[in-house]
Amino acid sequence: MTAALRNDVFLRACLRQRTEYTPVWLMRQAGRYLAEYRATRERAGSFMGLATSPAFATEVTLQPLERFALDAAILFSDILTVPDAMGLGLGFEAGEGPRFARPLRDEAAIRALQVPDMARLRYVFDAVASIRRALAGRVPLIGFAGSPWTLACYMVEGAGSDDYRHVKTMLYARPDLLHRILSINAQAVAAYLNAQIDAGAQAVMVFDSWGGVLAHDAFEPFSLAYTRAVVSQLKREREARAVPSIVFTKGGGPWLEAIAACGADVVGLDWTLPLAQARRRVDDRVALQGNLDPAVLFAPVDRVAAQARAVLDDFGAWARPDGRSGGHIFNLGHGISQHTPPDAVAALVEAVHQHSRRPA
Amino acid sequence: MTAALRNDVFLRACLRQRTEYTPVWLMRQAGRYLAEYRATRERAGSFMGLATSPAFATEVTLQPLERFALDAAILFSDILTVPDAMGLGLGFEAGEGPRFARPLRDEAAIRALQVPDMARLRYVFDAVASIRRALAGRVPLIGFAGSPWTLACYMVEGAGSDDYRHVKTMLYARPDLLHRILSINAQAVAAYLNAQIDAGAQAVMVFDSWGGVLAHDAFEPFSLAYTRAVVSQLKREREARAVPSIVFTKGGGPWLEAIAACGADVVGLDWTLPLAQARRRVDDRVALQGNLDPAVLFAPVDRVAAQARAVLDDFGAWARPDGRSGGHIFNLGHGISQHTPPDAVAALVEAVHQHSRRPA
Repeated sequence: MTAALRNDVFLRACLRQRTEYTPVWLMRQAGRYLAEYRATRERAGSFMGLATSPAFATEVTLQPLERFALDAAILFSDILTVPDAMGLGLGFEAGEGPRFARPLRDEAAIRALQVPDMARLRYVFDAVASIRRALAGRVPLIGFAGSPWTLACYMVEGAGSDDYRHVKTMLYARPDLLHRILSINAQAVAAYLNAQIDAGAQAVMVFDSWGGVLAHDAFEPFSLAYTRAVVSQLKREREARAVPSIVFTKGGGPWLEAIAACGADVVGLDWTLPLAQARRRVDDRVALQGNLDPAVLFAPVDRVAAQARAVLDDFGAWARPDGRSGGHIFNLGHGISQHTPPDAVAALVEAVHQHSRRPA
Repeated sequence: MTAALRNDVFLRACLRQRTEYTPVWLMRQAGRYLAEYRATRERAGSFMGLATSPAFATEVTLQPLERFALDAAILFSDILTVPDAMGLGLGFEAGEGPRFARPLRDEAAIRALQVPDMARLRYVFDAVASIRRALAGRVPLIGFAGSPWTLACYMVEGAGSDDYRHVKTMLYARPDLLHRILSINAQAVAAYLNAQIDAGAQAVMVFDSWGGVLAHDAFEPFSLAYTRAVVSQLKREREARAVPSIVFTKGGGPWLEAIAACGADVVGLDWTLPLAQARRRVDDRVALQGNLDPAVLFAPVDRVAAQARAVLDDFGAWARPDGRSGGHIFNLGHGISQHTPPDAVAALVEAVHQHSRRPA
């Protein structure tokens, strides 16, 4: 038995349906800027201890909802669970980011790469089911995965990078090997997101966090083509409701039209484009999610509110004079910083709701 | 007495005049990917030992010209010489990037900030004069500086950053303080570039390396406005020749039209935009410099040549059917990587010259 959804404003905005106000959630809303998150992580012992325990993942996923009137929850997890399940050996070293024990550098390892058995990711699907129960219909739950290209960056580099030298060398010198990785990744990500939907995710988001580092002529064949393949395989409905999909390419502004045509319902935007321009360029064929600079949250609360209103005004009215209508989900243009004062988030959420509220 | 310039293809391309072939130079062409550079740096003891010695700076500036038929030399220096001269205390720690001993964080320090006495930067102008003598008219010499915003990032953060938290906090919370820093920086950069021109620089480039991290509504007031102020103060002629100016904003693709209207003769482009699109957007009102992904240089040489040809073809013909004409300076979309094989650079330069050569 699933509790009826009491707040579907986010889901309706994803589908460009009329809503009473603009829904808001924040990338990485369950995170280190919250003292209660830090306390749970302490108890869990490590980031992976948190992410692999459905009970802990449920606890931290719900924490920001207790503080702020957010319109969606997002699964607490990490994009690197998929390559970890492929056997690359994910670890998080203190003070550093994630690192793979066995990065994909040689042809034999790439040929041996397989779509992982989804049973190895059961802890994620269990977390989704557990979070849905805990939410009890309060707001929808968003599932997510990394894009095939973004996962490939980590898999080949073995860690974060500032020049993506190894994966780009492969791209230019051995594109056949990179295409093999991307093809496996696309199958794995589609299966992973569909299993999240089966477990109860009510929307899904693909994070193409590193799409923006590609050259203009490499973005389509090495990133967008595989994101499109993922989106085309996604289950579109569950519990008699549409399951919207969101694609977010950090730095993807130059290629917005192409991204908007990838089949997703919503395109996430970083802060480099005005929403009005983005909306014009996608011609309201998709909803837009974004796009406040997370650094605004370091400003005094009255300034946070003013900047939030500017983003809303920039998107403009739901309906256009020509009869088309848009969808806007307020968000940041990137994950929230660990240094963010929670009071600024409270001011932001309140400003979004207040300023966007429309007469019935 | 100054030797006559024997190769002015670069200067003419900057001014959108007809050239026999497309000139090429590479950002950071004098650098660690060259064994002879590493040997000189070893002798100099440190990066600053290199940069502050006109003799060493001359030596490394000329090194890539001995190997490759490049059409311009660029002063070997660092953008942080200017804030160093302001008293922030520049240091380079082994294995890390630059770091300021006294980052600008408090109001008193910001109020006390002054345009530095150019005499403190005399080692740079001496290097320019020395390089000009050593070049003896072989190719033109490009001088450079960081943009006011990019310098402010380093000055406030105190070092490189991945989130620009301190400078962006100042931007949103105390814009008055940031404007004060930017205003001083703009005056300092203009004076600095003019002194380089006086010393013999035949073109100048402003590196807005961090412009792309700004939100769309912050780029104009906090970066471009101050770059424009710099450009407007530049000396436009020396030795009876125009001194072209180049502005390069990494990640500036979304704002290309605005950047192209800042008064510079040339706009540098990263690899996220196709040159054909960029040329259309600026309508040949400025020349374009770029824009090969430096990672292409990790590929086999035949692939390097093919990608170079694709960039040239993307820019297209010098003259358009409507009578307008463009200017193209071939370059990378970012500084060359220290891991680049020099043979790839040789193949690149040869491919650019060969493929672009036009009948007289």
